[in-house]
Amino acid sequence: MRFKLFTALLIVSATGYAQNEDSLKIRAIANDILLHGKAYDNLHILTKQVGARLTGSPQTYKAEAWGQKALQQAGADRVISQSCLVPHWIRGGKDEASIVLPGKKNQPLDILALGNSVGTGPKGIQAPVVLVNSFDELEQKKATLKGKIVFYNYKFNDTYIKTFDAYRDAVGYRGQGPSQAAKYGAAAVLIRSMSHAADNNPHTGSTRYNDSFPQIPAAAMGLQDADRLAALLEKEPATVFLKTNGKMLPDTVAHNIIGEITGSEFPDEIITVGGHLDSWDPAEGAHDDGSGCVQSIEVIRALKAIGYKPKRTIRVVLFANEENGLRGGSKYAEEARTKKEKHIFALESDAGGFTPRGFGVTMSQEQLNKLRSWLPLLSPYGICDISHGGGGSDIGPLYRELGTPLAGLQPDSQRYFDIHHARSDVFESVNKRELELGAVSMVALIYLVDKYGL
Amino acid sequence: MRFKLFTALLIVSATGYAQNEDSLKIRAIANDILLHGKAYDNLHILTKQVGARLTGSPQTYKAEAWGQKALQQAGADRVISQSCLVPHWIRGGKDEASIVLPGKKNQPLDILALGNSVGTGPKGIQAPVVLVNSFDELEQKKATLKGKIVFYNYKFNDTYIKTFDAYRDAVGYRGQGPSQAAKYGAAAVLIRSMSHAADNNPHTGSTRYNDSFPQIPAAAMGLQDADRLAALLEKEPATVFLKTNGKMLPDTVAHNIIGEITGSEFPDEIITVGGHLDSWDPAEGAHDDGSGCVQSIEVIRALKAIGYKPKRTIRVVLFANEENGLRGGSKYAEEARTKKEKHIFALESDAGGFTPRGFGVTMSQEQLNKLRSWLPLLSPYGICDISHGGGGSDIGPLYRELGTPLAGLQPDSQRYFDIHHARSDVFESVNKRELELGAVSMVALIYLVDKYGL
Repeated sequence: MRFKLFTALLIVSATGYAQNEDSLKIRAIANDILLHGKAYDNLHILTKQVGARLTGSPQTYKAEAWGQKALQQAGADRVISQSCLVPHWIRGGKDEASIVLPGKKNQPLDILALGNSVGTGPKGIQAPVVLVNSFDELEQKKATLKGKIVFYNYKFNDTYIKTFDAYRDAVGYRGQGPSQAAKYGAAAVLIRSMSHAADNNPHTGSTRYNDSFPQIPAAAMGLQDADRLAALLEKEPATVFLKTNGKMLPDTVAHNIIGEITGSEFPDEIITVGGHLDSWDPAEGAHDDGSGCVQSIEVIRALKAIGYKPKRTIRVVLFANEENGLRGGSKYAEEARTKKEKHIFALESDAGGFTPRGFGVTMSQEQLNKLRSWLPLLSPYGICDISHGGGGSDIGPLYRELGTPLAGLQPDSQRYFDIHHARSDVFESVNKRELELGAVSMVALIYLVDKYGL
Repeated sequence: MRFKLFTALLIVSATGYAQNEDSLKIRAIANDILLHGKAYDNLHILTKQVGARLTGSPQTYKAEAWGQKALQQAGADRVISQSCLVPHWIRGGKDEASIVLPGKKNQPLDILALGNSVGTGPKGIQAPVVLVNSFDELEQKKATLKGKIVFYNYKFNDTYIKTFDAYRDAVGYRGQGPSQAAKYGAAAVLIRSMSHAADNNPHTGSTRYNDSFPQIPAAAMGLQDADRLAALLEKEPATVFLKTNGKMLPDTVAHNIIGEITGSEFPDEIITVGGHLDSWDPAEGAHDDGSGCVQSIEVIRALKAIGYKPKRTIRVVLFANEENGLRGGSKYAEEARTKKEKHIFALESDAGGFTPRGFGVTMSQEQLNKLRSWLPLLSPYGICDISHGGGGSDIGPLYRELGTPLAGLQPDSQRYFDIHHARSDVFESVNKRELELGAVSMVALIYLVDKYGL
């Protein structure tokens, strides 16, 4: 027992020393970000001076220029841009809808056309509405849908504690709903927004047409309007007028903006950390994903600020076109494969600038165990869980193409779907300290992966 | 090894069974609160129909009546009110301050007199300002303070991850600052608010005069005004005009409002859960502590809703006068001692209606271990840490008088000091789901303590 105790003490002592050094380094990272961080100021510039950044819009390029400058200012050894072809969808004008009442006293509905959707044409579409609460109900009513506007009123499930589970549960109605309705001859689709917001903001987002069926217009309504329309339909049939102007233009070019610090010991081993630069058009993309961009830039800035020289090459990537194409993430992985790059880890922040709670990962159990062994170092800054399941849309292709282990920052998710893809995703909805603590967790994790490998 | 394995399996199985039953019960609690909870609606009534509830104000009694009704509606077996003498401080009029500039072009400062502070008299006080960054600096400048306005510009420390640590670090300037300055002949005190809010709202709160020194007026400034005044004082001397109207009236009577479910097996074993009904006057006391009140009321409502009959007596207490006297909490403990009541546990929520992260406790290590053994049941709802250090102001006297083990809900603290004691502590600053998840954690913990004892 004595010997065992002695060995145990030795182990504790050795681990204790490294942990203490790492603990001090991470404390220095946190102090620097909380006192001198640039994430909040950078986000202010990106949201207020650039604004909404829908792929292909003029702001796309303004955002790219901003990203290059911000990465240079953060201290990147080099900043490059990686071009890729991207879809170029435009909203094309103001979306309009109303419940058509007798005597021309229409009740306006606040809508946003879904991303990638076709427009109704200049005259709009006026048709009776058929409400369905689910795809099952759509099947039951399939014989009645010809020429109608299908209203998917599928409710966001409030009993999921992690709100992304509710999103995953509901988002199929936005993605596949239009084509599923078109299959049965529907003229257009309205969807209840994927949200539990108490306000009436509609939440847009991509839809994906199935080539086997006609492309029909589709738009989202806020929850108050969805409830109002549903209540009306309980009592009597209703007709809705809908006018949207969406149009897919020919593909255009956008760029991933990449800032790099070359590794001092293993320059060929690459660690990627990023967020996406594009956003939906009705708001400022503050949480989605301005936050992820400015937090990622902090990785370079804060490591420089504390005087840490990475052993491995660290790349901060501001990805193009996550929202309606994922072409930036695909291009990044494609080039990594072509150039036979060695990607040892990728981290994304694309779940909002809220207080961090954990990381979700896609990697081996052994790698997860290694990350979990760092929990005592990360938990003082809010990380209390590292578990399987997570990563990020933009880094997903790295895993699929190269098997790169992935992690995604998991901030508190309770407020995310209040603002996700809605007009309310503005700078003012981001709390400075919450944003900064997310950055602290990310920089700390990158520091540990860089130092110890994965 | 076989035997050991077998025993281990038996233990796992037995625990597994109970855990599964408890897990289902807690899931039922969560579903009920997230789908049918009354916390958010109750908070809306308390903040918008009752409003600010400074002890002794007419709204005190309106709030008490609301509390009685809400507890009855939640399903309490009986609701009683417990009277206590409380201090009756009034603000007495609009607080005014300005930097006096040559030529009568004064620059207004946005201030709030500190709670319990004396007024300046109708003519106000005009005097040169002496800035001190700390009590140490006060000592250094003590010879220069006679007749001056002392400006405590002690900064909230942003490097504390848990913001309550920054509050504990800074709050002495509000509590003891006025008397410390009066000791050296100062005429009045201004303090930099205990906050990291980016806005200019002043944050009030109690000050405590030391009987050995004269009582002098004292007020808080928001951070923008504090920085502006400090910047001016860097360049040149400044004079400030200050007018406050605070007055302490004779003690009056207020009430703890108590709703009870009598225990079915151990009715003499009491579990207390509560928050405080009073608030500061400039806002609505939404987070502080309307949230704690409405969450506590959910304990009775949700346990009834899922059909759980408590073994022990559960008391929901809406305490009187936490903010400027703590007389409600003191009275409750005093009566418990006089009546020789057996209090086995008390829980308070008084740190805001934000997403729960943990519980802080004041109890034996053995009791803490018992609570920690329930972490697997609580963590799906956001609780990731139960540690020593915590409880609540109102339940503190129970520990001091009777040794009752205490716990305090610890929600995410990043936004709390943006709104704490400021005009911005309004209903709109509370997120429905965050509030509800706090209630879920509280009801779940009370359920477990009731079922298994402590």
